[in-house]
Amino acid sequence: VVGLLAGDAAVKRARSTGLAMVTVCNNNHLGLLAGYVEQIARHGQIGVVLTTSEALVHPWNGAEAMIGTNPVAIGVPASPEPFILDMATGAISMGKLIAHRHRDLPLDSGWAVDAQGEPTCDPHRARAISPFGGPKGYGLALALELLVGAISGTALGRDVVGTLDTTWPCNKGDLVISIDPAAFGETEQLERVSDYLDAVRRSPARPGSGGVGIPGDGARRRRDAAMADGIEIADTVWQELRRLDEASAAA
Amino acid sequence: VVGLLAGDAAVKRARSTGLAMVTVCNNNHLGLLAGYVEQIARHGQIGVVLTTSEALVHPWNGAEAMIGTNPVAIGVPASPEPFILDMATGAISMGKLIAHRHRDLPLDSGWAVDAQGEPTCDPHRARAISPFGGPKGYGLALALELLVGAISGTALGRDVVGTLDTTWPCNKGDLVISIDPAAFGETEQLERVSDYLDAVRRSPARPGSGGVGIPGDGARRRRDAAMADGIEIADTVWQELRRLDEASAAA
Repeated sequence: VVGLLAGDAAVKRARSTGLAMVTVCNNNHLGLLAGYVEQIARHGQIGVVLTTSEALVHPWNGAEAMIGTNPVAIGVPASPEPFILDMATGAISMGKLIAHRHRDLPLDSGWAVDAQGEPTCDPHRARAISPFGGPKGYGLALALELLVGAISGTALGRDVVGTLDTTWPCNKGDLVISIDPAAFGETEQLERVSDYLDAVRRSPARPGSGGVGIPGDGARRRRDAAMADGIEIADTVWQELRRLDEASAAA
Repeated sequence: VVGLLAGDAAVKRARSTGLAMVTVCNNNHLGLLAGYVEQIARHGQIGVVLTTSEALVHPWNGAEAMIGTNPVAIGVPASPEPFILDMATGAISMGKLIAHRHRDLPLDSGWAVDAQGEPTCDPHRARAISPFGGPKGYGLALALELLVGAISGTALGRDVVGTLDTTWPCNKGDLVISIDPAAFGETEQLERVSDYLDAVRRSPARPGSGGVGIPGDGARRRRDAAMADGIEIADTVWQELRRLDEASAAA
């Protein structure tokens, strides 16, 4: 909820100044960032949202988690639908690592390292998630940790608590940036961006690859299908949701 | 030169507003971005610089270059030296690909694809550079292309010319962003950032890895060594520099 308010505040401010940044301190888990930048993009502005997490990712060559999974989301207005990128800088999420542990499934190579910093495919020996994209991904993850921490004044690295373990109040930060292209004299960006994205979608693909996609297209198709056909929920989760619903109705 | 002026303008503006973005249109090749963000960081501000290039990088699953090598540079004040990240979103630079062609050296896997979009290690068959970091790196490279193009109003994708082939005037854009942490109520970020970076440097490393580094440290060591010991220049380059020097002295 705080994230949506921050998005609204950034959009309003950018309308007058062209560029606005809102910092959120000590907020709880933001959830998926895609929704915030989509909200900004639907106002005709470009949105960038950054946040951090507890230290789960090791530095390049490192054996210990020192960096959050630090996702970045970028939304750009386009027709018929905005461009929405929402990606973490960890190779996988902590949720995925835990799921592999529960099911005794091997990890892909490059996803995690053991207590000595050696790459491991054993989910039970994994001690830290690897950054995506090797040393460059590490540099980016570290830079995003610094941007969020230094600007919002919130905790850095192993001092971040409460994003997974909610017994502690969460002390991480979030940055919500909104940019109004019109303020920079740019009025035809919607058409130019849409044309360019169409050219990328139509560009020649490797045979058998299924074609070139644009970030956000797949998630949008899955969401549309879920809105039309419903979603599958595990029985235990459904029972828990019913129980919470009844408890809140009784309160 | 335009880049340095843009950096100065952004720093001055951020001092009063907390946050400033300067767009540069139709500029020539910026050169290394590290110098611009270092300039901003030495003023106590956080710098982010983005630029694009001619389309050299293929989309994920794609066979044709549709995206620039789109580097991102991020500078954050720290003691004793600022944090400086300067990385392209292509797996390698065009210069490196050309050097491998000239020397008939094989490419590493993941660096490039051939005309059908299949990964290739043959520098002569390589038609497009791969994004670093797989599909996530592709998403980031595309998002940066959109940010620069949509905000500065400059060309996108295959419409960008003149960054390599200087027979055309260059029509790409650059973004220079400067953020003054003090404007966001943050006054102790220098100490916090420096302490965190030291903790990352000292964190346990994989045996035999040479330890955990921070982006910019290696480049700084090489620069300091070069300032102390001089640099090696190929004879032909040195002759050309002398010729240019004499020609400009005569003009």
